[in-house]
Formats: sequence, structure tokens, C-alpha cells
Amino acid sequence: MKGQVLASIYAVESVLAQGNLPVNIKFLIEGEEEVGSPNLTPFIEAHKDLLDCDVAINPDASMIAADIPTITYGLRGLAYFELDLIGPPTDLHSGLFGGIIHNPAQVLCDLISGMHDSQGRVTLPNFYRNVIPLADEERQELNRLQLNQTYYKIQSGAPTLWGEQGFTEIERISARPTLEVNGIFSGYIGSGSKTVIPSRAMAKISMRLVPDQDPQEVQEQLEEYLRIYAPKSVSWKVIPMAGGPACITNIHHPAVKAASKALESVWRKKPVYKREGGSIPVVADMKKILGADSVLVGFSLPDDHIHGPNEKLHLPTWYKGIDAFIHLLYNLPEEIKGTKK
Amino acid sequence: MKGQVLASIYAVESVLAQGNLPVNIKFLIEGEEEVGSPNLTPFIEAHKDLLDCDVAINPDASMIAADIPTITYGLRGLAYFELDLIGPPTDLHSGLFGGIIHNPAQVLCDLISGMHDSQGRVTLPNFYRNVIPLADEERQELNRLQLNQTYYKIQSGAPTLWGEQGFTEIERISARPTLEVNGIFSGYIGSGSKTVIPSRAMAKISMRLVPDQDPQEVQEQLEEYLRIYAPKSVSWKVIPMAGGPACITNIHHPAVKAASKALESVWRKKPVYKREGGSIPVVADMKKILGADSVLVGFSLPDDHIHGPNEKLHLPTWYKGIDAFIHLLYNLPEEIKGTKK
Repeated sequence: MKGQVLASIYAVESVLAQGNLPVNIKFLIEGEEEVGSPNLTPFIEAHKDLLDCDVAINPDASMIAADIPTITYGLRGLAYFELDLIGPPTDLHSGLFGGIIHNPAQVLCDLISGMHDSQGRVTLPNFYRNVIPLADEERQELNRLQLNQTYYKIQSGAPTLWGEQGFTEIERISARPTLEVNGIFSGYIGSGSKTVIPSRAMAKISMRLVPDQDPQEVQEQLEEYLRIYAPKSVSWKVIPMAGGPACITNIHHPAVKAASKALESVWRKKPVYKREGGSIPVVADMKKILGADSVLVGFSLPDDHIHGPNEKLHLPTWYKGIDAFIHLLYNLPEEIKGTKK
Repeated sequence: MKGQVLASIYAVESVLAQGNLPVNIKFLIEGEEEVGSPNLTPFIEAHKDLLDCDVAINPDASMIAADIPTITYGLRGLAYFELDLIGPPTDLHSGLFGGIIHNPAQVLCDLISGMHDSQGRVTLPNFYRNVIPLADEERQELNRLQLNQTYYKIQSGAPTLWGEQGFTEIERISARPTLEVNGIFSGYIGSGSKTVIPSRAMAKISMRLVPDQDPQEVQEQLEEYLRIYAPKSVSWKVIPMAGGPACITNIHHPAVKAASKALESVWRKKPVYKREGGSIPVVADMKKILGADSVLVGFSLPDDHIHGPNEKLHLPTWYKGIDAFIHLLYNLPEEIKGTKK
């Protein structure tokens, strides 16, 4: 839920209403996002009439800082896999067999280590083939936000930053694809020592995607990498766990204008537009299945530790966000009316 | 305990006895070998008089096959470490931070992958400096056992073998040092997916040592490797968990002759002499503190899956082993008498 109570509540405008609210709202609430939303796409497909709308309001987005109102116009996609390596059929004694067995934990490390080159680029075959290059204009706009190394060091707590050479931090984090190891496991990991050569090794590996990468193509690229580089001493299996393409929303959509005015009313300054590194597959579904653009305005902050321990929500920002959404609903009719045929 | 009930029972001959047995026996039993035997060495040092003896019989050894009686004359040493890497202070969301953080799981894989070169050699600085080269005579003797690839493939179940180039399987497994990854852990390893960049990564790494490597020196070599290759994006810690030097016993010791005759009496063939890949630190302690050589004769088999699931004991071999030990005790007085001043 990314730290937000409203993370999967979508407010949908259809026609001017007669009651207290100036628009009709349909709520779409789901609680399976963190397990890949297996039921959401089929549900939307099966209920196109029920969900028919002009625009989707999606608050599963974050602000750059508590005093910088933010509209997100780009989201990275996701392709998430489990990689299983199997060597000998059972764990073996490292004294009796050490020296003749290709240890699957070591093979996993070799394979993962080879997935980035010395420039921080992902080495899966053709990984960048469909990546749309960043236009100069967009790079200028992203870097205008002045989110520099110092900012990201403070936000992450990391002693030093790292990443693909040739791109700034904000470009790498929002507009460039990445490959991350989300988890690794093999052998004995309890306290003390156990002298085994593990039979198996496992990694959770995910890629953040940008337009026009396709999660299915990325799976093929990962499998091609393994076909080329995995030694014969192990067998391997790639299990897809979650995925969705990246998306860019139209920042000239009337609902985006309504959101911009709403944020300005509350924060007393114009919002900034940013691309976000996270993934919200439903945004692509809403567009593809319902033809509805999404306005991404949310109120989590970079130091909320989302998906980590001590996750928090900054309440003053949260209350401002409620005010902003009220303004947004009241701004919508005029903006949309101006564009309706 | 390596699958043997008697694994840490040491039978000690001192003088001819008057009763049924031809020798006096002192039993030394300990149950902490798999956690590094923290109390054994201090106990031996504190009870030299109590444990004074002519020879130690140590059954923590294995046979080459059920029909090949085996005397072990060499044991590899062990140096076992936990390696902890720490990157950012908390797990981070891989969407929001993916692209700027040097993922500790990836760094761990880079470091582990770099610990072997393309020839299967260990790359820790000076790792082979003190390794005594294998004499041609000993290589001939080891390889006379005809323990070839097919044999080890069957014993391990591994689809293909691997290891240091320039040495045969039996040499690599018994007379060459190795570095193994016994376990790795980082991030999310449950079912399904969680899009985190882990804060930490851990590995259990151990080295099997040969004469004259020293476990403390190997720790310094590992730390030197990390000082050279660990990036500034992580901090690291090496925690020693268990260790002991390799040892070679004198195959011309009278008790070894007694054991050889005992095995021949039961199996009706002369035993073979082998070096074993495992580690039994107490053998070095018995020699250093008590001045006692150890005779290593045990009855586990290569397919016992020791330290693995479905560990077993081959009972027919076990009963033969009991017979052999009875012969050994009755052979001892004559062999030792012949050498006593």
C-alpha cells in the first residue's frame, strides 16, 4: 500500500452530479498490489461499464518534499522474477566434496555479478533495445528539480551513491531502467557455522522498466542471459512473480490542470512534475481497458521508509493532501467542461 | 558428529592391562565439534595428566567405499567466517531508490564472484603462499586410488564436476585448499515478491586448508581482499566462527600398523591410505598438547550424505568396523612394544 491509506482508492469523475459533490465518484479499492494484483486486471476487464469514467485519480504517488507539491507524470514498469539454481541433489559436506563441486551459491553470485558491467549498465542481451532515449528537454526539466547527490544521500542514508554512468541521480531513479537483487538465499544462514555445499541457490531479481520495455521481453532477455552464461553444473528456472509496463501520462490532460490548481491552492506554490521510479500497473490497465488517463497525486514523502522498517506517514502533509483532493474534485468540472465536445 | 555414533570417542592405549583388554583405554567424548569445539582445547590443556597416552584412536573418518578399508593420514584444516555487508541503514523501496543505491546483495555477489579466478583458484591475496606443494610421490599414491570423475559424480549426484585446474579430483578434494560459500542471505526470501533494496547482505564462507596454512593468516587474507575490493558503498565485518590447521599423521606409526592389520583381518584385503578433505582440529591438539599421534580409521561411506538431509549409516560396514576396532586393540601391544625403548 506504499504507506498511504488511500493507495488503491480511485476516484472517478463521470458526469456533473446534482448533490453536494460537483462530480460523481466511483471507488475502486484493491488490496493485492504488493502481490502483483492478480485479480485487478480481470476485474476491470469484466466490469468496463461499471468503471466507465473520464479520469482516474490515483494517490499512489509521492512528493519530492513536504513543501514541494508534486504531480507524477511517469511511472517505471516492473518485471519481477525468482531465479532458482539447482546443483547437486542434496547439500554436501564441504570437507568431503569441497574442490570438485561447482557450488550453486557461488554460481548464483557469478551470474548476478555479471548482470551489471563496470559502467553500471545492465548486461542482459538487448535490455536497452526498446528503451526510448531521454529527450534533452525532459532531461532539463528533470534536472531543474535540483535533486542532487546530497539530497538522495540524506533520503536513503546510503554512505555513497552508485548507478549507471552518464546519467544524473534523478534521471537514473525515474527515467532509466534498472536491475535489482531484492533477495538472495542459499545454504546455511543460521547462527554459527555449518560446513555445507548448498544444493540450491535462489534470488529474487526485478527490473524497473521505462517506455517501451515490455515485461515479457525482459523475461526472455533474462532467460537468454542464463542460456549464455549459466554453467552446465547447475540447472535453472525463472519464475515470473509480478510485472507491468512503464507509463507516461499526458500532463496537458484537463484533470492534471485541475490537480495542479488544487495543489497550488493548498501549498501556495505551483507543483513540480516528476517521473517516479516505482510501478503502478493499474495505470496502464485503466488507459488500455477503460481509455482513462490517471492523475497521479499522492502525499508520501521520500523519508517515509516505504516497504522498509519504521514506515511512517507525515500527518501535516496528509491533512494538506485531503484539502488538495477536495479542491481537485471541485476544480474538475470546469476543466473538463472546457475540453468536452 | 559426521554420522558416526563414535565420532568423538577417543580410545587411548597407555600400558598393558591385567584384565580382559590388552590395553588401557581412556575415553574422551565431546559433542561440540559442529560448533567449533570451543571447550575442547582448553579441556585437553587443563588435563594433560589425565589424558596422557601413547596414541589416539579417532574414528571420525570415512572409507572410500564399503569394500575398501581405509586409513586416513591427512586432514584438511578449516577457517570459517561470517561476512556481513551493510549498505543503507534500512531496506529501501527498489522503485524509489533503484538506480542510485549500490545494492549490498549485488556487492556481496561481486565480492564472492571475485574470490575465484577463471582457473578455479582462490584469489585471496597470498592464499597459496604457505601451501606445501604436493610431492610427485604423493600425487602418484593418491591417484592410484582411481577415484575418478565418474566415481565423484555418482557420490555427489552433481551433473558435472568443477574445481582448480591442474589437479585431479582426488588431489583437489584432499590435498588442495578450497574456498566455499556455505550460505548467503539478503533481503526478501519468502514466497512471492517484495520490491526492496536490502540494507544488508550476509555470507558464510569457509576455507579448507592444507599444510602449512594457518586459519588466522587466512582471516587476514580475507580481510585484505575486502580492503582491496569492497566498495565504499558498504561497510563490512568478518566474524571468525570456527577454525583449525590441517594435519598429516605419520603412516609409519606402530598404531597405524596395528590398524592396518586389523582392517586386513576383517576385510581380507590391505587398506588404502588417503588424505581426507574434512577437518578434525582435535587431531592437531592431541599432537601439540599431548604429543600423541592419532590413528584415523572410521566407517562412514561417501554416500552417507553427512551434514545433509537423509544422512545415513551403512550397518554392515558399521558392524565390520566394530570387529576391526577389537582387532586393533589386540594388535596394539605387540606393535607398540616393538618400538618402545
